[in-house]
Amino acid sequence: MNEKRIQVSILADFTREVFVARGLGRDDAAVGADVLLAADLRGIDTHGISRLKYYSDRLKAGIIRPAVKLDIVRETPTTAVVDCNLGPGHASAARAMEIAMAKAKRGGIGAVAVRNATHFGIAGYYPLMAANAGMIGIAATNARPAVAPTFSTQPMFGTNPLAVSAPTDEEFPFWFDAALSTIQRGNIEVAAREHEPLPEGWAVDANANPVTDAAALLRKLNDGSGAVLPLGGAGEDFGGHKGYGLSLIVELLCAALQDGDYLTKLAGGVEGGSAQAYRLGHFFMAINIESFIPLAAFRKISGDMMRTLRAARKAPAANRVWTPGEKEFEIMCERQRDGIPAGDELLRELRQLGSELHLTSP
Amino acid sequence: MNEKRIQVSILADFTREVFVARGLGRDDAAVGADVLLAADLRGIDTHGISRLKYYSDRLKAGIIRPAVKLDIVRETPTTAVVDCNLGPGHASAARAMEIAMAKAKRGGIGAVAVRNATHFGIAGYYPLMAANAGMIGIAATNARPAVAPTFSTQPMFGTNPLAVSAPTDEEFPFWFDAALSTIQRGNIEVAAREHEPLPEGWAVDANANPVTDAAALLRKLNDGSGAVLPLGGAGEDFGGHKGYGLSLIVELLCAALQDGDYLTKLAGGVEGGSAQAYRLGHFFMAINIESFIPLAAFRKISGDMMRTLRAARKAPAANRVWTPGEKEFEIMCERQRDGIPAGDELLRELRQLGSELHLTSP
Repeated sequence: MNEKRIQVSILADFTREVFVARGLGRDDAAVGADVLLAADLRGIDTHGISRLKYYSDRLKAGIIRPAVKLDIVRETPTTAVVDCNLGPGHASAARAMEIAMAKAKRGGIGAVAVRNATHFGIAGYYPLMAANAGMIGIAATNARPAVAPTFSTQPMFGTNPLAVSAPTDEEFPFWFDAALSTIQRGNIEVAAREHEPLPEGWAVDANANPVTDAAALLRKLNDGSGAVLPLGGAGEDFGGHKGYGLSLIVELLCAALQDGDYLTKLAGGVEGGSAQAYRLGHFFMAINIESFIPLAAFRKISGDMMRTLRAARKAPAANRVWTPGEKEFEIMCERQRDGIPAGDELLRELRQLGSELHLTSP
Repeated sequence: MNEKRIQVSILADFTREVFVARGLGRDDAAVGADVLLAADLRGIDTHGISRLKYYSDRLKAGIIRPAVKLDIVRETPTTAVVDCNLGPGHASAARAMEIAMAKAKRGGIGAVAVRNATHFGIAGYYPLMAANAGMIGIAATNARPAVAPTFSTQPMFGTNPLAVSAPTDEEFPFWFDAALSTIQRGNIEVAAREHEPLPEGWAVDANANPVTDAAALLRKLNDGSGAVLPLGGAGEDFGGHKGYGLSLIVELLCAALQDGDYLTKLAGGVEGGSAQAYRLGHFFMAINIESFIPLAAFRKISGDMMRTLRAARKAPAANRVWTPGEKEFEIMCERQRDGIPAGDELLRELRQLGSELHLTSP
């Protein structure tokens, strides 16, 4: 595959203009661009500009509404339930995280449960906002059904990512952002596009046999005849029930705290079928570190922790021991300098978007 | 193995009297007994009365101090850092959870980071306190090094359990309590005692080869020449880096927020060597559901979620799909009626304890 590099600012500008052309305010569009590029910069190509067409199409179809409009449904000094009215996911989610952070700044902790939300990109963007402000940030979302409970083969809940970031005394924070399944849906989509087989142990069909054909798996997720396995894999022997339970914690925080849709009720937006809104739920939390210990002390401890871990004895075949967020930081440094890799197919998609919206494409 | 059944109340009384004989106040001793029996009742035999001798020996040696003495180091309306002064783990932790719950009751959320703590039994006991009060409860603890980071073979952090409970409209709450490693240390101890091999994929030696001899693994964990794998297993292919990251979130919450020992600094209490205090850190959080939505609405949603999951299509070889806490509830009903199973070895240990402390043993 022929792969070019495109400067971050060029892609960010184009992404912002696509969102503006789809009706978003300039500031909200800029947040959307920042979230998508934050993913591309960190090597999470499945959640960056490769998803721009998805957002553009759903804005065009009216499934995502262009206005960022947050209604506070219920509020206390530390908590809020917020209705995002199916507005653009990135800017709405950033606004909700800011509410949690403002509450944490004043009261020590802030938590916001969000209803009627749309796809917010990488979950990890929002905890980073908190870490940059000297707080621990937590974000989670439910998602379309893809994962089977332990001892089941039916896709009942989403890959339900959980993201946590915390400041350190290093150049980059602790940064964790992971689907609570063996893999996230984006990995399957990439494998399907590139005709790569999946390893056994990621997904099963209705009879609990391994599915290794990525395109077939995507079809099975949509018609319910196959499912991704929870983190820890099939059964209980290697902790699959733990991944299952962790996913449900995310589901409870994201849906039950705001009286929203959950599990199979989130199947509305099936790709290939007629796209409908699926009303996602998010959960954001900010913990003000200064309420516990001085921020500088926390930074020193968390940094020491990361340095201690990197110095651990390596497995014979391993080159390095990383800490969460380190690999992504290194990719970011490299891509800020050299640009974001973009394959022919992605460039073609961006050109089509540009032509459709009368924009100069990258 | 010959296995008797002993009524819960008999074991609870004996456990309480052992703690009293070791210097605990009667109420604190009763909490300790309640935590241990809560584990036995739910089938978590590794964390119940089989650990009574551990606590008794450490109290005798002065490593655990008998007085429950919580010093508030720093406090806001929603947060606290609490020093437990190496007091008895169960009663001290319950007191810390009560502080978090009182804060949540008033302010929506409460979080308490605990320093100088000792082993508190099953992490899941404390979130249950919150769930019984109509809140979401979260508890976590760090632990002696046993688990290797991804691409390492050195035991750097503990099995770091995370426990979460939430009310439902059913007879029992959502209840999740899991080490964030493939297995918890107790499983290895049981396998070693019963000379059972471990499955490949739970632990590795210094060269990243599988360790299946449980007794050998316990030695390796102590001398650092082997380690348990994080949830998700070795490498990144099945999400081992996710289990690693989740464990570090627990480590940050439990240690960095209270300026306590972490990672390999917690190796003090090596079994078989000269026992020393290892100053554990805990983290407790309570979320007052009523701050978000009416409790009855939450109960209905969370209950519906669990019922929906149980109705999922079963894998061909599976009998049932459980939800977190369901299996444990069924075991509890059975053991409340029929008593707690106790093998010969355990009964011998309890008799020795009784004789040492001039108590009538079960």
